[in-house]
Amino acid sequence: MDYNKITGSVAAPLGFKASGIHCGIRRNRTKKDLALVVADVPCTAAALYTQNKVKGAPLIVTKNHLENGRAQAIICNSGNANTCNADGLDIANAMCEAVGKALNLLPEDVVVASTGVIGQPLPLEPITSAIPALAATLSDNGDDDAVEAIMTTDTRKKEIAIKFTLSGRECTIGGIAKGSGMINPNMATMLCFVTADADISADMLHEALKDCVASTFNMVSIDGDTSTNDMLTILASGKAGNATITQKSADYNTFKEALEVVMTHLSREVARDGEGATKLVECFVSGAADIKTARTVAKTVIQSSLFKAAMFGSDANWGRVLCAIGYAEAEVDVNKVDVEFESAGGVIDVCKNGAGIDFSEEAARNVLVRDEVRVNINLNSGDATATAWGCDLTYDYVKINGDYRT
Amino acid sequence: MDYNKITGSVAAPLGFKASGIHCGIRRNRTKKDLALVVADVPCTAAALYTQNKVKGAPLIVTKNHLENGRAQAIICNSGNANTCNADGLDIANAMCEAVGKALNLLPEDVVVASTGVIGQPLPLEPITSAIPALAATLSDNGDDDAVEAIMTTDTRKKEIAIKFTLSGRECTIGGIAKGSGMINPNMATMLCFVTADADISADMLHEALKDCVASTFNMVSIDGDTSTNDMLTILASGKAGNATITQKSADYNTFKEALEVVMTHLSREVARDGEGATKLVECFVSGAADIKTARTVAKTVIQSSLFKAAMFGSDANWGRVLCAIGYAEAEVDVNKVDVEFESAGGVIDVCKNGAGIDFSEEAARNVLVRDEVRVNINLNSGDATATAWGCDLTYDYVKINGDYRT
Repeated sequence: MDYNKITGSVAAPLGFKASGIHCGIRRNRTKKDLALVVADVPCTAAALYTQNKVKGAPLIVTKNHLENGRAQAIICNSGNANTCNADGLDIANAMCEAVGKALNLLPEDVVVASTGVIGQPLPLEPITSAIPALAATLSDNGDDDAVEAIMTTDTRKKEIAIKFTLSGRECTIGGIAKGSGMINPNMATMLCFVTADADISADMLHEALKDCVASTFNMVSIDGDTSTNDMLTILASGKAGNATITQKSADYNTFKEALEVVMTHLSREVARDGEGATKLVECFVSGAADIKTARTVAKTVIQSSLFKAAMFGSDANWGRVLCAIGYAEAEVDVNKVDVEFESAGGVIDVCKNGAGIDFSEEAARNVLVRDEVRVNINLNSGDATATAWGCDLTYDYVKINGDYRT
Repeated sequence: MDYNKITGSVAAPLGFKASGIHCGIRRNRTKKDLALVVADVPCTAAALYTQNKVKGAPLIVTKNHLENGRAQAIICNSGNANTCNADGLDIANAMCEAVGKALNLLPEDVVVASTGVIGQPLPLEPITSAIPALAATLSDNGDDDAVEAIMTTDTRKKEIAIKFTLSGRECTIGGIAKGSGMINPNMATMLCFVTADADISADMLHEALKDCVASTFNMVSIDGDTSTNDMLTILASGKAGNATITQKSADYNTFKEALEVVMTHLSREVARDGEGATKLVECFVSGAADIKTARTVAKTVIQSSLFKAAMFGSDANWGRVLCAIGYAEAEVDVNKVDVEFESAGGVIDVCKNGAGIDFSEEAARNVLVRDEVRVNINLNSGDATATAWGCDLTYDYVKINGDYRT
């Protein structure tokens, strides 16, 4: 599947516009806190949600709205998760009604999302007051404002758009994501909104989303905390004019590959921007007996606090990698495990058959000081592979989370 | 079960002596790094080991030695875990032989343990050279040196001894533990050595140890990393002269309760001294449908990085408690959950029926700034309870683990 990266994100596919403004949920007036994404036709739609038993009210409303596989707009605020609030469902529903009224849409065709602190009432007034202005500023390049408006402790915008060809027609997929802490997606993810102009049924859209999330967002962990508000949504406008995808055809596979490119990019960007992170850490597991083992080992290593702290210190403490492999809930012969560290600084072998080998500490440090570091683990027990993404554990993670709320 | 705390630890029970010195595994000459505990008669003995698939060589040797339920001495070094080393078993066996030779014991009656960095060869020479001096300095109050010698990043000695009565005879149990990072015991624990002068069969000793570990060390988590070298050992000299405990009698229950006092104390002390910790955090879960649910919820909350960072900041961010309950692998009706914070500073309700309630931030802060803080969670779904212990996540945890090895 050939593709080209282009500028923009969710407003890049045909039929979509976006906008973002400061409405007043956040005290800081220079920080946008309300985003809108709208299609000019009803879209097929699919979503995946957190598996946390505590679910944000917006997720419950969205799930209800997407039961018919159709949506036309997305409203999302940052600064408040609208979760564990007695009036949460009322507020989330009212947000959809306000968008419906402003854009002449059914409230049921609106996807609603909220992100920020849990358990503080979300005031409705700033949102409803701002929606007319938000609707009035919708544009083809408003996605740059929208991606800013969904950020919380994020320090970087996570956005991408790619063009590819689907049975002779040019198609575009765009996506934005937010997420920096409370990140250990399971089944669904932090907030991620994807748009596409391909013509594809809601069922196939859901299938493609499920397939891609297993190897992308579900392989990201910042801190092992699965959020209450994780949500991943895709809307497809059908404007590319390809023959409608209604089954697992060659076109479906092409679409899925393109979607995986978008979601892999956003997953890496989320990991790179983990709260307080100074580096993106990638764990590549090969030689696993099956893919489940590969994924479990990769994700267990990427989640180890001790390994993450060692990465912060650029310390080639591979014993912590072995330790994490040893407590991973997977069948592994630890006496067969090889470990190496890799980056733009080079590659260094540190462990062979589960035991240490001589290596230069200086050379290892030169590999580990880079801002993208990879630990390669070969289990030497099969052909399955998996990649997980995370980041280092730093002073700033503690600082950000020690006084996030007050 | 009535008991009195007394001074001392593993040398307090009748028949035990201990010592500790600097032998040279650590570069810092002022830090003791080799401990010896010896009984003047063969003891019944039992142990529990890490469930990590990567196991330190000393654990494998000890497990082998304890197959007959008998031991008479414990040798333990700090500064090097003797794990993932090609010559690990040879070194561990040689340590037992050296102790056997110096004390005229069978090497098979020696328990061996090592703690420290993984994957670096452990030099034998400093240990064998020091053992004669270690044997010569054995004394009734040498346990103070022994507990110091097993410390790694620990900042406090974890030690206790209690006296109680077993069918009319005065008995003593003493214990020492070490552990500060890589702590998430599962089935067994960090290093903990317990001695007793009760007369009890090896089978009953093993049974009592298993029973007590479930509610004590297995409920501690510092960082979610299950070590490769966790080990919990108990030796009973029989010198108290009670009728031998060979079944689950009233005496067995008394002994088990006394053992639980010792192990609970050491568990709390390990949590309090978590790497970089500024406070001991206790999570008490009540109203659970069963004890498994209570334990899973308590341990999941105590392990949440976000909750731990909030405790560091004395931030009453109860949303993170709800979030952790929501992703705990247990059946919980999140709409029934009540949460309160408690300390010597007072008690404050923050969440009722899964939703926030008004509370004074200032009053909450006054509760949370203390050095022992408790979060009480009522699931309102049954009668089972559990307590888990941990600590806050701080800058110093990152500092300690960012450059531990180099």
